[in-house]
Amino acid sequence: MGEGAAGAARVVSFLTDYGLDDPYVGEVKARMLSVCGEIRVIDVTHSVERQNVLHGAFLLYLSYRFFPEGTVHLAVVDPGVGTERRCIAIRTRRYWFVGPDNGLLYPAASEDGILRCYEIDLDAYPRYGGETFHGRDVFGPVAAELACGASPKMREVDPETVQKLDFGRPVVTDRGVRVRVLHVDRFGNCITNLRADELPSWMRYGDTFSVRSAGKEVRARFARAYGEVQPGKFLLTVGGTGFLEVSVSMGDAARQLGVRPGSELVVEQNEVGSVDRG
Amino acid sequence: MGEGAAGAARVVSFLTDYGLDDPYVGEVKARMLSVCGEIRVIDVTHSVERQNVLHGAFLLYLSYRFFPEGTVHLAVVDPGVGTERRCIAIRTRRYWFVGPDNGLLYPAASEDGILRCYEIDLDAYPRYGGETFHGRDVFGPVAAELACGASPKMREVDPETVQKLDFGRPVVTDRGVRVRVLHVDRFGNCITNLRADELPSWMRYGDTFSVRSAGKEVRARFARAYGEVQPGKFLLTVGGTGFLEVSVSMGDAARQLGVRPGSELVVEQNEVGSVDRG
Amino acid sequence: MGEGAAGAARVVSFLTDYGLDDPYVGEVKARMLSVCGEIRVIDVTHSVERQNVLHGAFLLYLSYRFFPEGTVHLAVVDPGVGTERRCIAIRTRRYWFVGPDNGLLYPAASEDGILRCYEIDLDAYPRYGGETFHGRDVFGPVAAELACGASPKMREVDPETVQKLDFGRPVVTDRGVRVRVLHVDRFGNCITNLRADELPSWMRYGDTFSVRSAGKEVRARFARAYGEVQPGKFLLTVGGTGFLEVSVSMGDAARQLGVRPGSELVVEQNEVGSVDRG
Repeated sequence: MGEGAAGAARVVSFLTDYGLDDPYVGEVKARMLSVCGEIRVIDVTHSVERQNVLHGAFLLYLSYRFFPEGTVHLAVVDPGVGTERRCIAIRTRRYWFVGPDNGLLYPAASEDGILRCYEIDLDAYPRYGGETFHGRDVFGPVAAELACGASPKMREVDPETVQKLDFGRPVVTDRGVRVRVLHVDRFGNCITNLRADELPSWMRYGDTFSVRSAGKEVRARFARAYGEVQPGKFLLTVGGTGFLEVSVSMGDAARQLGVRPGSELVVEQNEVGSVDRG
Repeated sequence: MGEGAAGAARVVSFLTDYGLDDPYVGEVKARMLSVCGEIRVIDVTHSVERQNVLHGAFLLYLSYRFFPEGTVHLAVVDPGVGTERRCIAIRTRRYWFVGPDNGLLYPAASEDGILRCYEIDLDAYPRYGGETFHGRDVFGPVAAELACGASPKMREVDPETVQKLDFGRPVVTDRGVRVRVLHVDRFGNCITNLRADELPSWMRYGDTFSVRSAGKEVRARFARAYGEVQPGKFLLTVGGTGFLEVSVSMGDAARQLGVRPGSELVVEQNEVGSVDRG
Repeated sequence: MGEGAAGAARVVSFLTDYGLDDPYVGEVKARMLSVCGEIRVIDVTHSVERQNVLHGAFLLYLSYRFFPEGTVHLAVVDPGVGTERRCIAIRTRRYWFVGPDNGLLYPAASEDGILRCYEIDLDAYPRYGGETFHGRDVFGPVAAELACGASPKMREVDPETVQKLDFGRPVVTDRGVRVRVLHVDRFGNCITNLRADELPSWMRYGDTFSVRSAGKEVRARFARAYGEVQPGKFLLTVGGTGFLEVSVSMGDAARQLGVRPGSELVVEQNEVGSVDRG
């Protein structure tokens, strides 16, 4: 195997809810380097909401696709650590995914195409302290082994037994579509569960729509770039995420709409004859 | 080219206003690694104030000089993403700079010495989603190509057409100098736009000066180290940044002075015969 | 020397109180890469409380052990920077430690076994700006030199002269033990100074104990995993840190107890005949 190929095969992406204020992320990396000195770890984020598996699954789903083929995706949001939930590794078409079997890995892995699933043999991975840090003691070492081409201690299981999870389906109504906000980013962009390839046929670039949250209603233009509307105005975009987003040019849509992850929004067509006040 | 030289040439420095809570920084790195598996990315900071180009330009200016020759500086603070602002790469004496043509790169690049400028050919870099994430879809891949010695799709342009930006000049008055705070760091140090090599001749180490913000006035000793004054006392230093800073030993000068980035401060000599109450 | 060995020998762990919002961490890494292009830097954390040497020493102590042999641990929490406190490097059984001689390195280094100590020759390391950023100007370059097998400018000193520091001893009382909280993590876990190998003989897994903070008293089960108690219930664990922790399953123990780093807690046995209301 050539150097280039080896390099490409040794990337580990890393996503958790550990935060960066504690030494936990560093400890996992230290353990991984102890297992295999040749890996490269790329942090996706460690700011998943604490123990929010859905949130973690969504951020992993957004980001996994940009990594080079052969990347091992290590993801840990694990409120059930130490209980009977399994530790798993999933081989997909282009990647490996390693983490707890609680749905976290499923949306990304199933989209990429699950080939094989494995249950990690916990007895083979010693814990330092109690059963509270499988990221460092189990998942990290397994991810490092996979990235380096070693064989972790695990046994194949039926892919159908893997815990499933989905982001909810947008609900099409008479004149609009009801979507769920799955993530609010630093810029206040509200990222919804409506994928670009599922946009209603009546949503056309340049048109203006109404966006309703609980108690608020604004008008937003469907645009390709923030700069297409005046600063302070709402817009709808297919953001860099590939999902419909609600934004404010040079502003903070989430704050203005009072929206948080989990909130619902309704996007509606203009009434016939309505005047665009946007 | 030897291994060492190659290693030195493949560093990418990375500065944005993306924050670390979203997967954006990870996605850019993932794309870069997909373009070139051999690069090393060093984060400068991703906490530039949202869409504050001046702030980003200053932090880039402070830090770029410490990187090894050949480093590609990737910087993205880009409120105009998707509009007609250009995507550029600048070759300087020791480095490359890649980012939006909105002034962000100018102070650092011009200080290092601009040799050539290029406009990136947007058609050559596919966007995933809309025109909202050129960091991942355009700038990152171009930076990775440059770091690896590949040839990005771009055409040379007149360096004079690059958007300029400066940090404002300190204003010398009768008895003092009026400076602008460009950054407040974690320790509450207020970093001003007065460079060490432009200090007034009357500023001598060991002397005490008055420092005025809007509505507050304190006395501060010009010192080489925080420990030269008592805990809780104000001091002036030429900090690790190479600019004049206002600090409090073991305290938070910004909070005590009510100062934020953009605030003005006046540093004045003692009146003749004044008693040093510091 | 084989590739693997070289790789393993060139890891630098990095812990500071610099935060990630300023360019300081990036500048130190840039300087290190300029000294030696082959090192790998792993961030432990940069969120040590500002200028809190005890807090930094504890986080270093928790994490250093997970790094591969030969790692250079670079740690900087340095309120005395620029004063007469020494800059030191310590050779231990498995590692190097580099930082200020203020106790920060001592608990980790002494546990690993101090072999030799060195005082860094400040004259050999030029400062950019004043005497305020030895992390970038002195410690970083020395750590990089050590990681690459170069010889920093330093002279051997008596290990007995190194500044000592300890985390305080738990105090055993009639019916319990008084411990100090040394760190509160993102999940609200309160990590104490009671080590797993020093647990009182009366603490047995599955039993329930009383935990008192100033003004609050709760009952907590001594468990191996968070999931062993109901969500919202307190528990005691030997966490991933190897120290006794007080936690709430799916909750935030520090907030509920009103506890911060430095707070004291008392863990007591049940009274004979008491009814477990936990």
